[in-house]
Amino acid sequence: MGSTFGAYQSEIYLNGLDGRLPPFTTDPTALEDSARERLEPGPFRYVAGAAGSGATARANREAFDRRRIVPRMLRDATVRDLRTTVLGTEMPAPVLLAPVGVQSILHPDGELATARAATSLGVPMVLSTASSHTIEDVAGASGDGPRWYQLYWPNDDEVCVSILGRARAAGFTTLVVTLDTWTLAWRPHDLDLSYLPFIRGVGTAIPFSDPAFRAGLAKSPEEDPISAVLRWVPMFTGTDRSWDRLPFLREHWDGPIVLKGIQHPDDARRAADAGMDGIVVSNHGGRQVDGAVASLDVLPEIAEAVGDRIEVLFDSGVRTGADVLKALALGARAVLVGRPYAYGLALGGEDGVRHVLRGLLADLDLTLGLSGHRSPAEPSPDSLRYG
Amino acid sequence: MGSTFGAYQSEIYLNGLDGRLPPFTTDPTALEDSARERLEPGPFRYVAGAAGSGATARANREAFDRRRIVPRMLRDATVRDLRTTVLGTEMPAPVLLAPVGVQSILHPDGELATARAATSLGVPMVLSTASSHTIEDVAGASGDGPRWYQLYWPNDDEVCVSILGRARAAGFTTLVVTLDTWTLAWRPHDLDLSYLPFIRGVGTAIPFSDPAFRAGLAKSPEEDPISAVLRWVPMFTGTDRSWDRLPFLREHWDGPIVLKGIQHPDDARRAADAGMDGIVVSNHGGRQVDGAVASLDVLPEIAEAVGDRIEVLFDSGVRTGADVLKALALGARAVLVGRPYAYGLALGGEDGVRHVLRGLLADLDLTLGLSGHRSPAEPSPDSLRYG
Amino acid sequence: MGSTFGAYQSEIYLNGLDGRLPPFTTDPTALEDSARERLEPGPFRYVAGAAGSGATARANREAFDRRRIVPRMLRDATVRDLRTTVLGTEMPAPVLLAPVGVQSILHPDGELATARAATSLGVPMVLSTASSHTIEDVAGASGDGPRWYQLYWPNDDEVCVSILGRARAAGFTTLVVTLDTWTLAWRPHDLDLSYLPFIRGVGTAIPFSDPAFRAGLAKSPEEDPISAVLRWVPMFTGTDRSWDRLPFLREHWDGPIVLKGIQHPDDARRAADAGMDGIVVSNHGGRQVDGAVASLDVLPEIAEAVGDRIEVLFDSGVRTGADVLKALALGARAVLVGRPYAYGLALGGEDGVRHVLRGLLADLDLTLGLSGHRSPAEPSPDSLRYG
Amino acid sequence: MGSTFGAYQSEIYLNGLDGRLPPFTTDPTALEDSARERLEPGPFRYVAGAAGSGATARANREAFDRRRIVPRMLRDATVRDLRTTVLGTEMPAPVLLAPVGVQSILHPDGELATARAATSLGVPMVLSTASSHTIEDVAGASGDGPRWYQLYWPNDDEVCVSILGRARAAGFTTLVVTLDTWTLAWRPHDLDLSYLPFIRGVGTAIPFSDPAFRAGLAKSPEEDPISAVLRWVPMFTGTDRSWDRLPFLREHWDGPIVLKGIQHPDDARRAADAGMDGIVVSNHGGRQVDGAVASLDVLPEIAEAVGDRIEVLFDSGVRTGADVLKALALGARAVLVGRPYAYGLALGGEDGVRHVLRGLLADLDLTLGLSGHRSPAEPSPDSLRYG
Repeated sequence: MGSTFGAYQSEIYLNGLDGRLPPFTTDPTALEDSARERLEPGPFRYVAGAAGSGATARANREAFDRRRIVPRMLRDATVRDLRTTVLGTEMPAPVLLAPVGVQSILHPDGELATARAATSLGVPMVLSTASSHTIEDVAGASGDGPRWYQLYWPNDDEVCVSILGRARAAGFTTLVVTLDTWTLAWRPHDLDLSYLPFIRGVGTAIPFSDPAFRAGLAKSPEEDPISAVLRWVPMFTGTDRSWDRLPFLREHWDGPIVLKGIQHPDDARRAADAGMDGIVVSNHGGRQVDGAVASLDVLPEIAEAVGDRIEVLFDSGVRTGADVLKALALGARAVLVGRPYAYGLALGGEDGVRHVLRGLLADLDLTLGLSGHRSPAEPSPDSLRYG
Repeated sequence: MGSTFGAYQSEIYLNGLDGRLPPFTTDPTALEDSARERLEPGPFRYVAGAAGSGATARANREAFDRRRIVPRMLRDATVRDLRTTVLGTEMPAPVLLAPVGVQSILHPDGELATARAATSLGVPMVLSTASSHTIEDVAGASGDGPRWYQLYWPNDDEVCVSILGRARAAGFTTLVVTLDTWTLAWRPHDLDLSYLPFIRGVGTAIPFSDPAFRAGLAKSPEEDPISAVLRWVPMFTGTDRSWDRLPFLREHWDGPIVLKGIQHPDDARRAADAGMDGIVVSNHGGRQVDGAVASLDVLPEIAEAVGDRIEVLFDSGVRTGADVLKALALGARAVLVGRPYAYGLALGGEDGVRHVLRGLLADLDLTLGLSGHRSPAEPSPDSLRYG
Repeated sequence: MGSTFGAYQSEIYLNGLDGRLPPFTTDPTALEDSARERLEPGPFRYVAGAAGSGATARANREAFDRRRIVPRMLRDATVRDLRTTVLGTEMPAPVLLAPVGVQSILHPDGELATARAATSLGVPMVLSTASSHTIEDVAGASGDGPRWYQLYWPNDDEVCVSILGRARAAGFTTLVVTLDTWTLAWRPHDLDLSYLPFIRGVGTAIPFSDPAFRAGLAKSPEEDPISAVLRWVPMFTGTDRSWDRLPFLREHWDGPIVLKGIQHPDDARRAADAGMDGIVVSNHGGRQVDGAVASLDVLPEIAEAVGDRIEVLFDSGVRTGADVLKALALGARAVLVGRPYAYGLALGGEDGVRHVLRGLLADLDLTLGLSGHRSPAEPSPDSLRYG
Repeated sequence: MGSTFGAYQSEIYLNGLDGRLPPFTTDPTALEDSARERLEPGPFRYVAGAAGSGATARANREAFDRRRIVPRMLRDATVRDLRTTVLGTEMPAPVLLAPVGVQSILHPDGELATARAATSLGVPMVLSTASSHTIEDVAGASGDGPRWYQLYWPNDDEVCVSILGRARAAGFTTLVVTLDTWTLAWRPHDLDLSYLPFIRGVGTAIPFSDPAFRAGLAKSPEEDPISAVLRWVPMFTGTDRSWDRLPFLREHWDGPIVLKGIQHPDDARRAADAGMDGIVVSNHGGRQVDGAVASLDVLPEIAEAVGDRIEVLFDSGVRTGADVLKALALGARAVLVGRPYAYGLALGGEDGVRHVLRGLLADLDLTLGLSGHRSPAEPSPDSLRYG
């Protein structure tokens, strides 16, 4: 079955005959500029910003730029099949929507709009624990689309078990556990505005709606929001977890478990040793450890370290089809993309998310084909050159 | 016979005595700025733009910057002979006009003006299949100038044979087959304007004028342009060709055949194995595979891979005389230059193209001489230093 | 005992609930911009400026950017202890306030404000010989806080002995001898304004108040300031010292002695051979030798050269928590930070210094924890990656 | 004898007490900006401009930035002696004024002002053949200062012999033969203005005043300037010279001869073999071969190639004292500096040249001392670090 993602290109050009332009830019750099214009400073900076000096976010982009595709000719990549399967989830292309919290600061429909757009394309959405909407509502919006659940692991086993149970009940199949955010990083762009959505009650749908969480409160969050906040803050902030706690998750989740935030081959090996099903090589888009290594720079050695023992996914810095191809070539089975669709949500709700995704998939489809590849499995280190 | 190209310099300075300035800038960077001011956004961006994030176009320039000429002194390069012969075509300097389509978006005279300017200098023009004017009209404008034909290989053998026959009949001697554009890349700068000249009927001279193409239509393109467009789109877009189809071209073209878009030594070797006469090491000026390697970075190993088996030409990023010298030093027999003359066309029609070409050739002539070289054959890897 | 520095983050966010923002930015880059707006050009450029073309100041930052942290996961760094002890001085984190002279050009309270802020956090202040306030006054403001004294070594033994005696009497424990400023560098930013605070009488508190200095004058500095200036200039400018003079210092200082400005392993070894207690690897923040090597680039080999023979401190370019972590990883036991707190002083006096320090310590605390480290002793070369 | 150049620093600061500022900036980058504001575009661009895209001029600066000084401490460089002797010429510092032609486009006094400033400091001036003033007049202005003569070698032996004779008679001791300018490079910045001073009669003092030149004219240049121009153009442009012509120079010049423009070790060796006395490693400040290697990048291997057989001088890109130190460390015995003093001339005539020179020498004096060197002979490759 051939990919038809590239057809979005001709659709746009043909629309031009009727004077119709795309709803907003198809250029990832201009996209951020457009979002900056649309949003209030607080929400924009919360999404676009990074830890500290932004060094890691810049490093992510430079790492992509330093690696270059060597296109091959006359290989007949007319018919391309971008489909792949990751941990049992079939997807039309090696792309997932990265977990992005508090989406209602970007658009009133928030995660519901994102879920609808994702499902319309068959692209899996990884729902964040910090969602503005409840697990159940987002699941409803997802319809029959594939869905994964991201866990900010609460420091309260009852609440954790309750959340996991609800996610499973709502049809989420795969659990993505974020390892790099036991507390938020020092983020000057947010601190300078004293802007943190959670403290304002945004992104608290999960704990506030959770029976186990509510059971621990004297009054409901609706009646006494301050007390509710004071209960969730230490539950989600300030306490690390270590390797010996992973069996607890395995006990309470019967689907695949993916560890997100791995940056070192030894940690990747240990994840495999611990019986995890996958990892996401990620530095949280440069949002957590300022000055951290670019995730793409560590991907090759991590992929080599684990071989076929565990699925290797990638995020942090993916903006274009070429970026996806490069991550695949260096060992990722699929990539997660975050900020671009968040900007799409800000600029156009469900349609905006779809526009961004269709653009990325078209770009990927065309770039794969033009460089002589027919499927996500074909790019290899030989497809690239360093510098 | 000594080169007189450098004399354009004194001509300009002497004109200054009468207060006459050059028609427009002689600086390639300022040239692009001038063209931006002159043209509408659509045409300018179509010509100046690149695939995706523009990473490859930037890489092309950086690759030139990283390689530096080591000038030699007291070698007496007073008398220089820039002439060369490529595949039987004699040319006054190792420079050809790269195929650039739809030139009427830049100037009403389009390819006719370019052809006249090229012929006036004896520089070969490579006519694009996507020309705004018919093969025959451009041939007429070329007079007795050398001419090569660039093929966007149509996915209809009858039309292909018809086009090749017309090109041969019109006196085109060498066929340049573009391998990297079976479909257009994802180009945000054009997509954001929904601007694609072909869909608007520009650059459709070849198929619309072609008897074999017209024979396949119920009504003529003049009567029913939509149907004509719907016939040519799948003919020129969306279907790759592979190595086993090259004999078809050889069968229908009795002159030299050059494959344009080679970026890997193995593909270069295979072109030689397939009996091709030449290759153009090119990434289409960064217009096709975003994130692709700089063409200059792969030129040395490609030149080494094929040795004397096949002629090696180069394009992608050439802007100055020093750039030409560097490409020659790294193994190219001649280079193709594109955007600069397209800007010249926009700014001054035939005279504008000539001004740009004379400037480039003067720059090349002077740079060769000042660095101690007397002919295009003298630069070698020893003429350069990396970094 | 766990670090609570990170709590400054939540304090700021919680203040946001009441609409309170931080007193000024938490971003080191924006901090410099804010100081530029607040200060007159002379004082701003004196503090922000560097020697010559500023090449060394830029090199300092680039050296940090080129080294990147590889975060480790699931190591449980919930409880962190940032305390360390350097040459007998206990400090709550491996951070000291670098000697910064003439602080009254930034804020009327000058070094007194800085001393109060430092003591309130327990952070050692290294008082500059070029202080706007006397040793005794600053000591008074320091209360029970740890204090080190920086010596611009006067070319008059009596005055030197007098100053050292006063510093000891005032409770300063450790002597930091600056080796790289026997004269000021060529600093175009100051020269263009003819702005040098000392010549205007600022930063002359030490010599003007010193009995040994006054004893050498016919009239007191208050009566005849010109003569006083003419006496101190050659005392503090224009005469280098060499290794054989170090015993003189040892003779007159019974606490630890640290040599500041070491940039070469051989000089570090020699400092150890000379019985010194510590060194500061430093290029004076790029203020002295234009075109000098980045201090971070020489830190690893210096640390290796001296091993445990001598304490290795570091300054020059530290702006963020990640920078501190990197310097620790490469062999520094603690770092000195200068311009950031000077900007804080300019923007908010004592409160401003405290705000900057709390921000840096919070950033360090969080960055250590998020990358899997629990104490300043844990970062090692393996924590980093080059490029 | 100790250097007193550094005293210019305190002179400037002390002037500040009376509210006096330097006549113009002491910062080389700001200096170019100031000159841009003062001058008409033609003269400014002629001096500031470079060949082609300016790549070589940028490369010159980057080559300095990549090499960094490793300062050494406690070496007692209080007393510094910057004097050196090059080919029998004693100079107070290893710095000469590079030949810069047509200085009257910058200031009416032109080379006369430069000569006076140079002599007042004892710095040798290398007078350009393209001087606005005659050899004899500049010699007069030079007084008892050291003077070297730069030859643009005319393609007419009688004129050449006449010029050399006049230079010797006027007291010029050393001949600097420029090898890289048998014709001018392609310089868009000048071409776009059709601005070439020589064609306008500026910088023609030498040929127009020369008896041998005038003897070849039917009418004097004053009567028939066009014919005079038509005679000198082919005499100074368009004809290279080769190694076998050097004996002619030796025959007609009894002092030291220096070849300027060497960029390759083999050419340096050949200069020594040819019995030349010195070379200037130079790319003419990036004005001749666009895309040429940075001169500093080839200096080390050239210095090693010739050892003590021949004196090695350097120019191209020197702006600061650190630059001079780096060139000395890599094997140059002295450096030539051009554009900075030309800007000084434009901004302040003789005083402006002196201000720039005093600034550079002060910067050099201080930088040498602060990094632990006492004389120009002390910097060595060990004084630097790459990157």
